[in-house]
Amino acid sequence: MPGPPRHPVRIEDPSDPRIAGFVSIRERDLTGRQGRFIAEGTVVLRMLAAAHRAGRGVAAEAILLLENRIAGLADVLAEFPADVPVFAAEARVFDAIAGFNMHRGVLALGRRDAMPGMDTLIAGLPASSLVLAACGISNHDNMGTLFRNAAAFGVDALLMDASSCDPMYRKAIRVSVGSVLTLPFAREGTAASLIERLRAAGFEIWGLSPSGETDIAGIPPAPRTALLVGTEGEGLPEAILSSVHTARIRQRPGLDSLNVAMAAGIALYQVASVNGRI
Amino acid sequence: MPGPPRHPVRIEDPSDPRIAGFVSIRERDLTGRQGRFIAEGTVVLRMLAAAHRAGRGVAAEAILLLENRIAGLADVLAEFPADVPVFAAEARVFDAIAGFNMHRGVLALGRRDAMPGMDTLIAGLPASSLVLAACGISNHDNMGTLFRNAAAFGVDALLMDASSCDPMYRKAIRVSVGSVLTLPFAREGTAASLIERLRAAGFEIWGLSPSGETDIAGIPPAPRTALLVGTEGEGLPEAILSSVHTARIRQRPGLDSLNVAMAAGIALYQVASVNGRI
Repeated sequence: MPGPPRHPVRIEDPSDPRIAGFVSIRERDLTGRQGRFIAEGTVVLRMLAAAHRAGRGVAAEAILLLENRIAGLADVLAEFPADVPVFAAEARVFDAIAGFNMHRGVLALGRRDAMPGMDTLIAGLPASSLVLAACGISNHDNMGTLFRNAAAFGVDALLMDASSCDPMYRKAIRVSVGSVLTLPFAREGTAASLIERLRAAGFEIWGLSPSGETDIAGIPPAPRTALLVGTEGEGLPEAILSSVHTARIRQRPGLDSLNVAMAAGIALYQVASVNGRI
Repeated sequence: MPGPPRHPVRIEDPSDPRIAGFVSIRERDLTGRQGRFIAEGTVVLRMLAAAHRAGRGVAAEAILLLENRIAGLADVLAEFPADVPVFAAEARVFDAIAGFNMHRGVLALGRRDAMPGMDTLIAGLPASSLVLAACGISNHDNMGTLFRNAAAFGVDALLMDASSCDPMYRKAIRVSVGSVLTLPFAREGTAASLIERLRAAGFEIWGLSPSGETDIAGIPPAPRTALLVGTEGEGLPEAILSSVHTARIRQRPGLDSLNVAMAAGIALYQVASVNGRI
């Protein structure tokens, strides 16, 4: 139920203490910030509003808009509770605050409570589940795309080993179009322990690799399926591949294999289709 | 047939006239350069060697390597003719030459001759063909990914309207893992004229859209199929969609539609499969 129209507080001075949380967020984004995160752009702002209302540990703390974006965002702003402050600034002030100009005039600060660990997350999955498991993903673009695809194709949880990068970074959240804020995930431990946990929970685990044994079109339906993808460069190590089912995506020979996020998208589409999830 | 080992010419001075072509290539990359292009990274360098040997209008002019990359690239260098000069520099000199540090220590300058126009390209397609047609693609990442996917799934040509960005830019070439150098393409005219040309050549044209009528799994095999994708934000305009078959990719409701390059990858995989091309 949308609330009344919001009237942003005008900020004239980049050093105004009310917007201190937004100052130089680009650099701070690189350092990890105690459960806080940055949302950029209209689509992510809308997802933040949805996550905030859902009340599952994600909350908006403040919103900062470029003056000329306010009118077009009235409906999105109305989706936030009235106690979330909304600030507005002209371009010169806005850029002086944020320290960069990649924000599209729409920024929010959010907070995420400590999330359940991987065991708790797995224990809470429904009897019929689809999981995306990712190991050694180091690129925030790929991480964001994995989340976006996982959400699109009905994945219940995204599980990562500890060597994967943090999906709560600004760029990953943006590329995920906000799915990082709504899709349950956990990131801990080794690839081997991740596989062990999934197997113990009754998952059929399919490792994706150009050398996989089964065409992805041949992955059978199962109550619980986990699709496993590896690092951008090397893919999944042999020790992992030898411990799970393996699947490949047909493509023309003699070319570099598909990007990991693309491969995951195609395979998820296939597995979600065969399991009637989309 | 690989040639003899290459011995790079050491460059000690960033102003050495022999490597003038590499100076500040980042800025020049933004300006369009008379058929010249920049190849970055090992994978693209290998594709450049293949394109050079194929002799279809793409040639390497010079290669510049970071000292510590030489040993690992001996096999790739041997794939270039002996008259393509190879230079090497230490990191300090290399960065001073190139003006940025995103090159992974592997750069090449290439030249592309004027390519056949769209009509000539279409006229030369085989009786059984798969074409990817793209309109209004403005992001070089997406453009590169479209090429990478098109190559992986056996597309014969990638056709773009004039409003799409130039795939010969450094970043698009890199993201395409060099497929821009080997996959035939043309970029000219309007979306409407592109469709008209494909239709006149007997193509079944399928526009991809979240509102498409047919599930992509229902696109029937055909001797000549063209998959059509639109801009990142708005997708294909209604005037275009009403003039072609339309297809959609099933996904969970209530989310942003898939990224254009991801959607094209999934649909190409499907169409290439049903037509026995992969």
